[in-house]
Amino acid sequence: MSVSSAIDRAGVSGDGFRSLAAPDLRRAIREGRFRGPTAGYGLGCLQGNLAILPAAQAGDFLRFCVNNPKPCPLIGVSQAGSPHIPALGADLDIRTDLAGYRVFHGGSDAYRPVPDLLDVWRDDLVTFVLGCSFSFEDAILRAGIRLAHVEAGRNVPMYVTSLQTAPSGPFGGPVVVSMRAFSAADAIQAMLLSDRYRLAHGSPVHFGDPAEIGISDLAKPDFGDAPDLRPGEVPVFWACGVTPQMAIRQARPEIAITHEPGHMLVTDLSADAAEFSLGGVRPAST
Amino acid sequence: MSVSSAIDRAGVSGDGFRSLAAPDLRRAIREGRFRGPTAGYGLGCLQGNLAILPAAQAGDFLRFCVNNPKPCPLIGVSQAGSPHIPALGADLDIRTDLAGYRVFHGGSDAYRPVPDLLDVWRDDLVTFVLGCSFSFEDAILRAGIRLAHVEAGRNVPMYVTSLQTAPSGPFGGPVVVSMRAFSAADAIQAMLLSDRYRLAHGSPVHFGDPAEIGISDLAKPDFGDAPDLRPGEVPVFWACGVTPQMAIRQARPEIAITHEPGHMLVTDLSADAAEFSLGGVRPAST
Repeated sequence: MSVSSAIDRAGVSGDGFRSLAAPDLRRAIREGRFRGPTAGYGLGCLQGNLAILPAAQAGDFLRFCVNNPKPCPLIGVSQAGSPHIPALGADLDIRTDLAGYRVFHGGSDAYRPVPDLLDVWRDDLVTFVLGCSFSFEDAILRAGIRLAHVEAGRNVPMYVTSLQTAPSGPFGGPVVVSMRAFSAADAIQAMLLSDRYRLAHGSPVHFGDPAEIGISDLAKPDFGDAPDLRPGEVPVFWACGVTPQMAIRQARPEIAITHEPGHMLVTDLSADAAEFSLGGVRPAST
Repeated sequence: MSVSSAIDRAGVSGDGFRSLAAPDLRRAIREGRFRGPTAGYGLGCLQGNLAILPAAQAGDFLRFCVNNPKPCPLIGVSQAGSPHIPALGADLDIRTDLAGYRVFHGGSDAYRPVPDLLDVWRDDLVTFVLGCSFSFEDAILRAGIRLAHVEAGRNVPMYVTSLQTAPSGPFGGPVVVSMRAFSAADAIQAMLLSDRYRLAHGSPVHFGDPAEIGISDLAKPDFGDAPDLRPGEVPVFWACGVTPQMAIRQARPEIAITHEPGHMLVTDLSADAAEFSLGGVRPAST
């Protein structure tokens, strides 16, 4: 079962947008015709998390990502002030091509949800696009391995751990992990498959006893939905894209912009080609 | 610490044979100058387990190996009656180039140890060479991960499991596994590294609860030495080359020949090139 068919089963969507190529899906978002979460959309193209910061903080954040590649796999960085990242999509406009944004100020937890960034854009903003877990989850599902949260149409459970990121300037803090549970045999396969998708957080950082990485109660995730482990299943923990969001909050930048959770940037790059092509990332269509 | 330096630490050997290239080491064995176990010898060349059977059983055994690639990774097969396998070594003579052999008859547990096969050779014998765990263990050690049995100069513990091989003709029976214990983080690395060495049994078949694969007491292996787990370590189980030996015993062939445990065939192939070269296996020297 693919992510897409899991979503069908969960009744989340049965619309025609799922058959759209990435540029057409972005156009539908840009024109306000599509507003939903993007899991299962974009026909196997690489999707990413969004982090936009003022140029004054961009150097430190770039080094934070490079130093912490498991939670923060870099798939694109813009020029300061430019809303375009041609390597990720020829006509991509970062201000309009995601289905929802959150604008933060001064490190506050409070944010303003906005449908686009046309009014808040500034000529000193730098956009970072970081990999998300979709492509490794899809590889696991293609291998016939069950993902409980996908089957149930729920969010993956996420936990703040006692593992620490390598800090860079004001950016630092704990590694946040997502958890998926498997039988031992399936866990081995899932570890191997995820390792091949390094732009999607790569191999796990831990499995087994949650207390070893400072998780006191598996039933109470810090983000996402509570898990439902079956007897004999082993929890496996992957570094998660909430890690850079917490690092940004700790850095208290004057302004920071992220995507609405689940409403990712859909790029033109084949997720598989982005991972495995000899020449690095390249558009899916070439 | 490499396998070699671990052997130095254990005081097993400090001789000059360890600096010999594979053809020279085989010549030393052939001439009776070297008789020891081969772990840490042969300068990174692929080593293998030996199984010699009459041609009448060879087809079924070949299919058994192909159907069970984790316990029985095929690295060489001879023509019937020929003691040579040029793909594994230009001057290789399977009758004289291992440091010890065991000759079995009619599936009996009893065997005759012989220093060479010159007197027992027949023109209907087919030689199979199957990968062993040395190259993945060396990769784990190169990554700085401790292998307790290597450090202690002991044999790896091995267990008969409730997992069953895919049978072929008279060949079948349980999967035998070897066990190595690690912290969770090291276990993930060890799983990923071993997966790259598919001629050395590849990724593990299980980790965690031994009872799930029919092992009732980890402290009492069926073969090898008892393990010494540290607190927090997780047992990880790999398919093991004793599996085909048990399958051969079950098949009760008129004659079967194996190597003396630990006294492997040292081939001319670089273990890494054998796994990773685009053109398949090739001599290390070219």
